Amino acid sequence: MPETQTHHWGDVPKSWKCRHLLGLEDIDADEMTLLLDQAERFRNVLMQGDRKIPLLAGKTCVNLFFENSTRTKTSFALAARRLGADVVDFTASTSSLGKGETIIDTAKNIEAMQVDAVIVRHPCPGAPKLLAENIKSHVFNAGDGPHEHPTQALLDILTIRQRFGKVAGLTVALVGDIAHSRTARSNIWGLQKLGAKVILCGPSTLVSKNWEKLGVEVSYSLDNILDRVDVFNLLRIQFERQVVRPFPSTREYTHLYGMDVVRLSKAKRDVLILAPGPINRGLEVTPDVADGPQSAILDQVTNGVAVRMAAMWLALGRGCC
Amino acid sequence: MPETQTHHWGDVPKSWKCRHLLGLEDIDADEMTLLLDQAERFRNVLMQGDRKIPLLAGKTCVNLFFENSTRTKTSFALAARRLGADVVDFTASTSSLGKGETIIDTAKNIEAMQVDAVIVRHPCPGAPKLLAENIKSHVFNAGDGPHEHPTQALLDILTIRQRFGKVAGLTVALVGDIAHSRTARSNIWGLQKLGAKVILCGPSTLVSKNWEKLGVEVSYSLDNILDRVDVFNLLRIQFERQVVRPFPSTREYTHLYGMDVVRLSKAKRDVLILAPGPINRGLEVTPDVADGPQSAILDQVTNGVAVRMAAMWLALGRGCC
Amino acid sequence: MPETQTHHWGDVPKSWKCRHLLGLEDIDADEMTLLLDQAERFRNVLMQGDRKIPLLAGKTCVNLFFENSTRTKTSFALAARRLGADVVDFTASTSSLGKGETIIDTAKNIEAMQVDAVIVRHPCPGAPKLLAENIKSHVFNAGDGPHEHPTQALLDILTIRQRFGKVAGLTVALVGDIAHSRTARSNIWGLQKLGAKVILCGPSTLVSKNWEKLGVEVSYSLDNILDRVDVFNLLRIQFERQVVRPFPSTREYTHLYGMDVVRLSKAKRDVLILAPGPINRGLEVTPDVADGPQSAILDQVTNGVAVRMAAMWLALGRGCC
Repeated sequence: MPETQTHHWGDVPKSWKCRHLLGLEDIDADEMTLLLDQAERFRNVLMQGDRKIPLLAGKTCVNLFFENSTRTKTSFALAARRLGADVVDFTASTSSLGKGETIIDTAKNIEAMQVDAVIVRHPCPGAPKLLAENIKSHVFNAGDGPHEHPTQALLDILTIRQRFGKVAGLTVALVGDIAHSRTARSNIWGLQKLGAKVILCGPSTLVSKNWEKLGVEVSYSLDNILDRVDVFNLLRIQFERQVVRPFPSTREYTHLYGMDVVRLSKAKRDVLILAPGPINRGLEVTPDVADGPQSAILDQVTNGVAVRMAAMWLALGRGCC
Repeated sequence: MPETQTHHWGDVPKSWKCRHLLGLEDIDADEMTLLLDQAERFRNVLMQGDRKIPLLAGKTCVNLFFENSTRTKTSFALAARRLGADVVDFTASTSSLGKGETIIDTAKNIEAMQVDAVIVRHPCPGAPKLLAENIKSHVFNAGDGPHEHPTQALLDILTIRQRFGKVAGLTVALVGDIAHSRTARSNIWGLQKLGAKVILCGPSTLVSKNWEKLGVEVSYSLDNILDRVDVFNLLRIQFERQVVRPFPSTREYTHLYGMDVVRLSKAKRDVLILAPGPINRGLEVTPDVADGPQSAILDQVTNGVAVRMAAMWLALGRGCC
Repeated sequence: MPETQTHHWGDVPKSWKCRHLLGLEDIDADEMTLLLDQAERFRNVLMQGDRKIPLLAGKTCVNLFFENSTRTKTSFALAARRLGADVVDFTASTSSLGKGETIIDTAKNIEAMQVDAVIVRHPCPGAPKLLAENIKSHVFNAGDGPHEHPTQALLDILTIRQRFGKVAGLTVALVGDIAHSRTARSNIWGLQKLGAKVILCGPSTLVSKNWEKLGVEVSYSLDNILDRVDVFNLLRIQFERQVVRPFPSTREYTHLYGMDVVRLSKAKRDVLILAPGPINRGLEVTPDVADGPQSAILDQVTNGVAVRMAAMWLALGRGCC
């Protein structure tokens, strides 16, 4: 292991104040920029094939997932491993949770095992905050119900910044299932703090005019906004979260809100297409667009590991190296 | 990794004879004390933030769990990782066990992969012993039906010793579901060997007079023993193991055997409250007692990792460092 | 970690050309021999207790299993860990696969996380090849439907070579469930390329005369071939893959095709008995034969780790050390 190479990373900047990463509502633009800069550096090293940067050697992280996840859990696990930390899986379905224990008791038990970080996904908004208030370990929100999913938004924003060299002044449209999307919520906070204009676009059953109070524009027509948007972030229709289907048919949805080559041809020349996976090919986005040159869907995945490495190192790494 | 720091641990003491840790019935007081002393040392180092003691680097452990567990499995995994060993999960539900293989064949296969240690939980009493007799790998019993759960008892005993500086001469009451409790059985062996007096307390459907043959006192009234007990170990009511409910209602149980502030006020001033998690708050113990100064419930969890590190190092570590 | 010991392994031989290990149909005899030689060297080191050979330190592997497996998954995981690589589990049942994503999208996502190797098991023949054609990571086939299971065949062949010092000129009978067996298919390719004669033996519902086109002999009677076979590889009856039971009863099967001491007494003196686990004791093979001196069933398991180490190092290790 290239332990001798760790020195050039220096120590965590003094301006970083967050013990946890709970959401982008609570973090200011300077800290977000600091995290994105660090993620960029980690990404560059990873892409050069140097995949072990053991800045957090000896630290232990627990994946505490109360909802199914592979992608986010794997990305966090890889981020921790690449920083040299150990990762232990605390799967909720097979855990003591079925035995009547409260989430705080579960977390306090994990903390008592001298665990440094808890990465938590939970169906209840606020669950990560509750943990952060009750345990000394660092807490990372990997998605809390429809509330926030900060690392997803950060990886979206990093991908935007890589393509345009900036975020401020851009117009970003979040398209689709806003109502059920923690990713949308985190993106709104993050993008606006960094100076982007946000448009929410989707059927009225999934996008409410009330969102305008957050400072965003609401549009029920994708076609109307095509020519003035720099980034389309095509959110996944989350069938698994919907009790009542919010539109007549998926064909209807695709007809009105799906991104295809016809719509792409009416967009800006350098428009960027994002989509948090897993994508439903042919529903939110056609394959030719998903796999085309405007799409940065796979860059998002690469950036996901880098953003999580940055978040973990900034929160945990002070005095480590 | 601080490999240079490993030297001060020295080699495994020559007086340690056990290849396995199957139960506290088979281990003598001197060996138990040696293990507890070692666990204490590991705990102190862990609490100072030095969480990697790679005494078992290069060793491989397999978690072979035939029953659900998160807590014990995670604790063993953390113990192994902190000693630098690899841990591979051999989950029974998705394993070849569904394909008609015997447990010995499964174990022999694991052994043939050149695995150094097998950590086994199994619903049948004696299963770990059967493995130990049939494979060369070191076997650690993580709970075999209602028989033994030696590391749980050792962590209970370590917590007692930390609070009182001794075990001999203390009176320890195991309260509740004795009939279904491997933890009770291991505690009885361990505590008595170290010179403590043991009282079993619970409803007659869960505690039999026959236990007196093991040298313990049996009491059906918690109130009657309150003022002469140094440690209450409040066992979890294991609804998942009970076919017929052994008491009229949980309210009835709490009324007679739950530990609350009223009962605590009648106990010794320095009484210690233990409870193997996950606790049912309001059933065996009220929240104010569980979270109060007499409780060492979270110390137990911390000690769990330390005890398992000690057990693994003593069994596996000879000639390693 | 004994990193200083890595130098004597040298670099991957220039004659090794395979980026992936998809099947034995696509690999020539020289490469197979090179892999077996390397596996032999790794095995010898492992057996001496030196279980960490960090030739792939810093590499990351993903276990992508779309079918249940413990044995093969654990064996690959151990192989990767022993080479110092990280292994992350991407379990299909709890993954985004339920969310409508294609297997290629899943794989491209894993690749985008900068993963070096993907170990894949999938119910569809050809799935690993599809991955290999679409992603840059190295792909290892851990079983694709009834198609191929190359590492299983390689470990079988390594075990044969260890016992006889050669493969060429031997007669190897694959007995039982040929129709559902990827192991049979890979063995046929591998054994014939290395100069062995292959006999397929089983009931006509499980073995077709059509197989003769592959150059093998087909026999419906085990008793008829007993005295001229050097190796019996007793394939598992895979009840879980059969829709219609292909023989009247398991008793009938055992009567005609089970290996017992009576049959063994009619075989060659130095006959070798193999069986890919998990074995159904008393069905394909009686316990006294499975545990007897002719059996190398557990050697197969040990060789499995060594073969997988060799495959991974050859594919991934160029320029690593």
